[in-house]
Amino acid sequence: MGVVDSKTSKERIYSVEEIKKASNEMRAYILLATHCAGSGHPGGSLSSVELIASAFLNKLKHDPKNPAWQGRDRFFLSKAHIVPALYAALVYTSYYSLGEMVTLRQLWGPFQGHSDRNKCKGIELSAGSLGQGLGAAIGSALAAKINNEKHRVFCLMGDGEQQEGSVWEAAMSAYHFKLDNLIAIVDRNRLQIDGCTEDVMCLDSMAEKYKGFGWNVLEIDGHDIEEILDAYDLAERNKGRPTVIIAHTTKGKGISFMENKAEWHGKAPNKDQLIQSLKELNSNIDYEKYIKIAKQSFEKIDAKVKEDTPKFSKDYWWNSSDKMKVQMEPTRFGFGKALNEIGDDKRIVTLHADISDSIKITDFEKGHPERLNRVFSIGIAEQNMMSVAAGLAKEGKIPIAGTYGVFASGRPWDQIRTTICYNNLNVKIGGAHGGISVGPDGATHQSLEEIPLMYYLPNMHLFVPADSIETYKITKKSILDINGPCYLRFGREAMPIVTKPDTYCAIGDANVIRYRKESANFIDAFEIKQASKHKNENEKLAIIACGTMVAESMRAAYILKEEFGIETRVINIHSVKPIDRKAIVSAMKETSHILTVEEHQVGGFGNIIAGIIAEEKKPEDKFKMKMLGIKDRFGESGEPWQLMRYFGLSAEHIAKAASEFLKT
Amino acid sequence: MGVVDSKTSKERIYSVEEIKKASNEMRAYILLATHCAGSGHPGGSLSSVELIASAFLNKLKHDPKNPAWQGRDRFFLSKAHIVPALYAALVYTSYYSLGEMVTLRQLWGPFQGHSDRNKCKGIELSAGSLGQGLGAAIGSALAAKINNEKHRVFCLMGDGEQQEGSVWEAAMSAYHFKLDNLIAIVDRNRLQIDGCTEDVMCLDSMAEKYKGFGWNVLEIDGHDIEEILDAYDLAERNKGRPTVIIAHTTKGKGISFMENKAEWHGKAPNKDQLIQSLKELNSNIDYEKYIKIAKQSFEKIDAKVKEDTPKFSKDYWWNSSDKMKVQMEPTRFGFGKALNEIGDDKRIVTLHADISDSIKITDFEKGHPERLNRVFSIGIAEQNMMSVAAGLAKEGKIPIAGTYGVFASGRPWDQIRTTICYNNLNVKIGGAHGGISVGPDGATHQSLEEIPLMYYLPNMHLFVPADSIETYKITKKSILDINGPCYLRFGREAMPIVTKPDTYCAIGDANVIRYRKESANFIDAFEIKQASKHKNENEKLAIIACGTMVAESMRAAYILKEEFGIETRVINIHSVKPIDRKAIVSAMKETSHILTVEEHQVGGFGNIIAGIIAEEKKPEDKFKMKMLGIKDRFGESGEPWQLMRYFGLSAEHIAKAASEFLKT
Repeated sequence: MGVVDSKTSKERIYSVEEIKKASNEMRAYILLATHCAGSGHPGGSLSSVELIASAFLNKLKHDPKNPAWQGRDRFFLSKAHIVPALYAALVYTSYYSLGEMVTLRQLWGPFQGHSDRNKCKGIELSAGSLGQGLGAAIGSALAAKINNEKHRVFCLMGDGEQQEGSVWEAAMSAYHFKLDNLIAIVDRNRLQIDGCTEDVMCLDSMAEKYKGFGWNVLEIDGHDIEEILDAYDLAERNKGRPTVIIAHTTKGKGISFMENKAEWHGKAPNKDQLIQSLKELNSNIDYEKYIKIAKQSFEKIDAKVKEDTPKFSKDYWWNSSDKMKVQMEPTRFGFGKALNEIGDDKRIVTLHADISDSIKITDFEKGHPERLNRVFSIGIAEQNMMSVAAGLAKEGKIPIAGTYGVFASGRPWDQIRTTICYNNLNVKIGGAHGGISVGPDGATHQSLEEIPLMYYLPNMHLFVPADSIETYKITKKSILDINGPCYLRFGREAMPIVTKPDTYCAIGDANVIRYRKESANFIDAFEIKQASKHKNENEKLAIIACGTMVAESMRAAYILKEEFGIETRVINIHSVKPIDRKAIVSAMKETSHILTVEEHQVGGFGNIIAGIIAEEKKPEDKFKMKMLGIKDRFGESGEPWQLMRYFGLSAEHIAKAASEFLKT
Repeated sequence: MGVVDSKTSKERIYSVEEIKKASNEMRAYILLATHCAGSGHPGGSLSSVELIASAFLNKLKHDPKNPAWQGRDRFFLSKAHIVPALYAALVYTSYYSLGEMVTLRQLWGPFQGHSDRNKCKGIELSAGSLGQGLGAAIGSALAAKINNEKHRVFCLMGDGEQQEGSVWEAAMSAYHFKLDNLIAIVDRNRLQIDGCTEDVMCLDSMAEKYKGFGWNVLEIDGHDIEEILDAYDLAERNKGRPTVIIAHTTKGKGISFMENKAEWHGKAPNKDQLIQSLKELNSNIDYEKYIKIAKQSFEKIDAKVKEDTPKFSKDYWWNSSDKMKVQMEPTRFGFGKALNEIGDDKRIVTLHADISDSIKITDFEKGHPERLNRVFSIGIAEQNMMSVAAGLAKEGKIPIAGTYGVFASGRPWDQIRTTICYNNLNVKIGGAHGGISVGPDGATHQSLEEIPLMYYLPNMHLFVPADSIETYKITKKSILDINGPCYLRFGREAMPIVTKPDTYCAIGDANVIRYRKESANFIDAFEIKQASKHKNENEKLAIIACGTMVAESMRAAYILKEEFGIETRVINIHSVKPIDRKAIVSAMKETSHILTVEEHQVGGFGNIIAGIIAEEKKPEDKFKMKMLGIKDRFGESGEPWQLMRYFGLSAEHIAKAASEFLKT
């Protein structure tokens, strides 16, 4: 059907030649937008272009002027990291302009790093966690059947995504429900983040798998418009069961230096690469104009966020002056360093769930090819990763299983509960990408709920280290000193190093951190002690924090002293379970005001602190308490430090909130 | 290999005839033990007998005197609800005696309702949540490969279990890792709780599915010992990939009235049925002796639990006297009643995950065959259930998806987070079987962590109604009055009805409950009001509770008044999110002591209350606080009310804890 005016029923169906031209143009949009964003997923976007263009320009019944038109065909994008390709189709069919699309991954914009249906017209599903789109599409197709509606439901998936068991649950049910109004498309580009799908977790023969699950299976060249259109037609004529189109494609298609390169899965082209790409596409797009539009938009957002950040007599931002210098390093680096260092221990094995390099679990084998027989790539299958880890632990191994926090804690939660914790097995889970500081990938990838998910599991240990050095120490301790399940929460973005190699750090113990005086280096301005060694200095305020919020709290303590003369006791709870109750109770008894700060849904951490204080307090204890964190909402795409400001988690916000809190 | 003395290498390999005899005997053990327990899963236990007997008596290398012998073959039972069949094999090979086994499902015993490897010798895996055993077996098989060990790894699964996507993640990885030391067995009895597998969620052709996933597939008659032994041999000779044996069996095999009856999935035979069964088996087992042993064991446990229950001047237990009578009804009944009542609303659709009757979601269509086109059986595939529900909601339906609490909240957590909550879709989740009062099924099925799992999800509403009447009201309200995701936590066991049809009940509002005076009926002894309407009576104690703990807290208030003259304000937080902050703050300000009570990991609810109080308190507020709940441990098998006592959640425990707390 193609683009339709739902009022007049006037159609605009693009020809094969027109779709070819459009695909070329859409490639330019994708490259331009990801360049402007400085991040994103061009590889899989480029491999999907013809599949999406052929749908939106010829077969999909939709009306850009009336995106919610009930009669439209539905297009579910399950592999939502390639949403730039979908945005390009929305631009090409006039839902949005290119000038809008180049604000990709900017804060408050409709073009989130992963799709958000509540922000962006023409999007059926907010997605980003793989393996869920097909099930949602099935729900939509079932609704059409119930309502006796004739529209079709398309669902585009990635091939790596087929490693998720939820896809096979969905595949089984689509056959069971005889959903011939459902067309699944697999973009079979044979590459995922960690490399070739067949090396990461083999998927061949995908056709045999879908046939085994009862589907009508078509295999096509996913870049050949005629084959695609024919397949969409064949799928429509097929009755009584769902159709899957396995579309053989080339990742990075159309750009010489991107084609078949896994590294272009999640990396934006720089300007030279953009110019080279546009040349290869024969595109005469005025990229400078759009880069300028994107830059201006970003600057406006950034200015607004900075304007809304509390101001003081001087700028206290990280490394903003010649004093108080700090080094930055992502906490995940500490995780990798520890694994590399202790990896000779033959009991240690590591398990990957595709995104292994970015979480640094691959540092285990870096420079140690002899360890590769203790590295297991499980693919994008977090549930299985946890069960396999449990089986290895049962046999005396010490498995380290890692992935992004949402997928490390929530996706396999029941496996962690039953097969790891109830069995009390010695599995270590690296939960990367905790918090909104993940940045432009957006809400689906910003893990904000792991603390209560893991804290309330019997036998589990839970650590949220403050910086890369603590992550390094606690990774080692959790592997070598604890026989039982452990979860480590750490982050993606480079964060201040606020402890030293010889700073006290122990499981179950908190640290007390006191600001002393401005120094050349930030870290030398503070005294850090085992909490039980701290002598009460009658500080007015205690800030109890974990993870990245420890550094911000330290900086807040610095601001509070310099600006208001307020003495603050910062308590670093790197060990959330077991937790240092004494340090918390002492803070309650010895200070008047307690502020908890977490880069997490507010209360996930703070309520645990409140619970300890409430149970330990005597009637005469006169403290007040307040919590800072993410206020019961999802994150957003944005630059990491922009998000830290926007969500009120910068030291400036903490200091301002604390100073006002102290007045109460 | 069969039974081995690992010291002398002496073997005892049973012949085909001996295994047949053993299978008959094991059937008798299973029926006897489930009869003694009064619950359990005979159907699938009986279908698996020959598969297990042939392994343990002929092919599996194991030493009953040395269960942890490193050289043993591993036997993973993934469908752990049929663990009586495994216990029978352990008895037959002298790990345990039959006198021990008949204490099945008794508190503190090794023979938990679902397997517990830390309590019972010869068990490789604590299990009970389906679809996880194969992954664990893969981990074990990988460890053997790393260690260059020659033992084999068996994994017995159910057929219904094949609906779990995690099985297919595991299947994919076993092929990828070329695990020829792994033998999976599917007990293909074609029945699951909700009926025939092909009606619930079709699985045929299972062989084609496994072939599509690259496995060596054997199909056999799962009751023919020779075919089974041959298949185990063929699997051993097969190199380079894993083998699955699809064993065609009969559920309830060997007992005429149980064969091919889905109803015998999870129901114990009564005495007549036991006698009839033993007759059919030509068993001359002295069942009276064992029934007596089991009974004596139960009575001893029960006496001990009762002895440890705090005593007062009289017996306050439910319905123990002629006064204060109460009716009992499972809260899940209220869920079903509401669905039945409002089910004419065409927007409402229901989704089943196999255990639909027990959670009463089937009441929707009871007496209303015309609603069956709005009922979708998804099978044992909770992740897909949530995604499909989201898709239906997106199209304007109001989907009600229900299953046991662990599988309704944790198993599909990421689907709930991303596809339901981030999309902000109008899905209602019925989380049954909350708490330890689930009883004999044991830890894996006793959901104790749902509150924080759901509370910290943006857009989610969370309700924990106090009784069946509140469950009825809140089910209706959540469907008809709220446009957004809702989670309802309710329980399995009959619990006191402590509210009336006209008792005030509203989303976001708490109730205050005050004990007035002894009455003929328990419910008339109390005054229940909207919390904001309650006038301070200077009660010394506030008990803040949700769910089943409201009734116990009311009874505790009764005991506290009668025994100690203590006035208690009970606050019923049926609406945990949104929560009635004012009711909680008033309690803190107006009483001196606050006690939270939850049938849940302690703090999951209590810390939320503590957080509100901590943030709202003024320095001069002099309250004290204490929390009761499950103390960071897993549940156990046992009789529901035994467990309520053992875990310290009875009114007697609450009253005692409160009276001591008030002295502090």
